[in-house]
Amino acid sequence: MTAWCFGIDLGGTSVKCALFQTDGTVEEKWEIKTRVENEGKEILPDIAKTILAKMEERKIAKEEVAGVGIGIPGPVDEYGEIACAVNLHWGRKNIEKELAELTGLVVKAGNDANVAALGEMWKGGGQGSKNLILVTLGTGVGGGIIVNEKMVTGAHGAGGEIGHASVEMDEEEACNCGNKGCLEQYASATGIARLARRAMTSCEEDSVLRGIRNVTAKDVFDAYKDGDALAAKVVDQFARYLGNALAIFSCVADPDVIVIGGGVSKAGQVLIDCVEKYFRQYAFTACKDTKIKLATLGNDAGIYGAAKLILSK
Amino acid sequence: MTAWCFGIDLGGTSVKCALFQTDGTVEEKWEIKTRVENEGKEILPDIAKTILAKMEERKIAKEEVAGVGIGIPGPVDEYGEIACAVNLHWGRKNIEKELAELTGLVVKAGNDANVAALGEMWKGGGQGSKNLILVTLGTGVGGGIIVNEKMVTGAHGAGGEIGHASVEMDEEEACNCGNKGCLEQYASATGIARLARRAMTSCEEDSVLRGIRNVTAKDVFDAYKDGDALAAKVVDQFARYLGNALAIFSCVADPDVIVIGGGVSKAGQVLIDCVEKYFRQYAFTACKDTKIKLATLGNDAGIYGAAKLILSK
Repeated sequence: MTAWCFGIDLGGTSVKCALFQTDGTVEEKWEIKTRVENEGKEILPDIAKTILAKMEERKIAKEEVAGVGIGIPGPVDEYGEIACAVNLHWGRKNIEKELAELTGLVVKAGNDANVAALGEMWKGGGQGSKNLILVTLGTGVGGGIIVNEKMVTGAHGAGGEIGHASVEMDEEEACNCGNKGCLEQYASATGIARLARRAMTSCEEDSVLRGIRNVTAKDVFDAYKDGDALAAKVVDQFARYLGNALAIFSCVADPDVIVIGGGVSKAGQVLIDCVEKYFRQYAFTACKDTKIKLATLGNDAGIYGAAKLILSK
Repeated sequence: MTAWCFGIDLGGTSVKCALFQTDGTVEEKWEIKTRVENEGKEILPDIAKTILAKMEERKIAKEEVAGVGIGIPGPVDEYGEIACAVNLHWGRKNIEKELAELTGLVVKAGNDANVAALGEMWKGGGQGSKNLILVTLGTGVGGGIIVNEKMVTGAHGAGGEIGHASVEMDEEEACNCGNKGCLEQYASATGIARLARRAMTSCEEDSVLRGIRNVTAKDVFDAYKDGDALAAKVVDQFARYLGNALAIFSCVADPDVIVIGGGVSKAGQVLIDCVEKYFRQYAFTACKDTKIKLATLGNDAGIYGAAKLILSK
């Protein structure tokens, strides 16, 4: 009988690790450093070592472990292979095969954003749903799509790459990806700061934002909550782009619930309220009641989703 | 050993029926009338009768039939139930259960647009792919999404309702669905005619379209092929909205191939070429090479997809 599984969230600076009971309870969490030097050669051996050490410490036999789920910052295909993971200095690599050889355990890998979506569905803001869109509003905009409880990987590992949905055909500034008009340019932390700078240059209106040297998304939401009119315009612009984009995505995947996470979502329920207003306006009739919720797992979404990769096999 | 299956495409005026060999060969096709009177009470019994009659005629025993697949013009949930099918005058109904009881055969039902997408993946323009978006440009714009060889039904049966993706936030005219700015308003046959009328009123430019009483989408594409400059502007507008929308959808579902069907697609390869130009411009890097192809099954996509519902179980 298997009683345990591991959930691993591999990031560019650290690896979040967790030991789960197979009922979904987290038994222990810890982190190790991600050693990206030497083309990241040590990363998988380091992960294997920490897993095997934990098993020895706890006197867990291989037969008692259902497997290791792992989220990777790069596109992972259905065979557990990645073409590249820039932050890890990795080229083509079969994660599942390599880590299975190193540990003697079953390994299942997925893209980190998709894995986080699985985590939020299982134990977070999307609990009880089978179809979910996770949007993470951080430095960039990431996302994961779950259809019938399974991650949408896509033909090029780009399923859920919603930050690069082209939502403004008339944009003149370029996104980091090279295209113009990506959702990320309006809805990420840097995108919201950009909208604020634009708003300040395009009018003379007074605003507390003008007294701040490098306006951040948090400044914008704080000023909005304090009743600043210019900040309200910026938030409205952000909400209109994001609400409309979520309405379009819903015509494709038709989720039960849309979960919003990432640093920007710390603004809280006011963010949901303003996005929801535009979502309801633009959504197709059948989808107008789709729930929009805040993510609840924060940085733990990845370890939960990784464990779920194993437990839902 | 099962050697046969039935593929049924239930429409508002007729029911297309086909007997398939389980290797996917069509043995025979025929049609019956859809009797929508009396709240469509006779529709399923009529379908059961024609199936049973065909089995008797061909001396096929029940044990030799893998099942009946059926496409329905309405949202079908994962249990084979619909909430309503306006064109059939149906309210809530469990199609799979009712038709199974009437025939004594296994029945699998799906939404007609999703089923057509499955057909195009299996035997049409998307052959060899596992992830596909079908767009049908007819009086309206319909669509079906296939992820990992399975139809995306969605939480409200609205998976693939891409005609109502809100692609123009500044539109002032309303779509039939009540929203403003739906893809259908720019990319359907009626949408293209609307763009042509708008173009003619907004400028004085000479065009062969001005000599036509009720300009159709076909007139626009014909004039475009003949070098008419105003028609070229209309086609460009259509292509920009559709190409951009397909780029957005690809960030969600990341298909191997996008298949374009419906009456408007009879314009042929020129339509693909102009849509592809904008798709490549707006698509996320990883998806820029996604193939865009014409549908090849025409009105038979539904029966093929319906048969595939059974054969891929």
